[in-house]
Amino acid sequence: MDLGEFQRRIERLYGERDRRRGLFETYAWLVEEVGELSRALRRKDRANLEVEFADVVAWLVSVGNLAGVDVAACVERLYGDGCPRCHQTPCACPLR
Amino acid sequence: MDLGEFQRRIERLYGERDRRRGLFETYAWLVEEVGELSRALRRKDRANLEVEFADVVAWLVSVGNLAGVDVAACVERLYGDGCPRCHQTPCACPLR
Repeated sequence: MDLGEFQRRIERLYGERDRRRGLFETYAWLVEEVGELSRALRRKDRANLEVEFADVVAWLVSVGNLAGVDVAACVERLYGDGCPRCHQTPCACPLR
Repeated sequence: MDLGEFQRRIERLYGERDRRRGLFETYAWLVEEVGELSRALRRKDRANLEVEFADVVAWLVSVGNLAGVDVAACVERLYGDGCPRCHQTPCACPLR
């Protein structure tokens, strides 16, 4: 699943209403989904858990669209070379 | 950027220490990164914003690894056919 392509799909799907809602109200939706993920994890509710993981990704890229940020490019830039701090696999940083 | 591949890369990088830390403490890290994303959005701090978007994705897939959930597969399942509710592009749901 290509994350950059997914971000553009979400723009086509929800871009207009995301812009009408605005950046921080869309961010608030992201936070709501992160909360729902917590509930699904606590309840070990498998079907719901899968929906919540997907919704967190969808709202995160909606926020990315409003902020003008290509989320996949950020991930590649930061994690493309292994651990961003120690550059080793597995990570050999003292703390994380 | 393939999200499924990235989740497996994060497993190789951090899987062992994620398991030692445990599911809910790893979830707590995710929440911390979501908070840092808010701060970067408020401050319009471009370089930091890109790091925070990437870190949210990284911690989300770490939680996915601990919960035994393939995040990319969830996204495909829920959003593969356009809007999960109205199945139209752009979304034509009354509210979102």
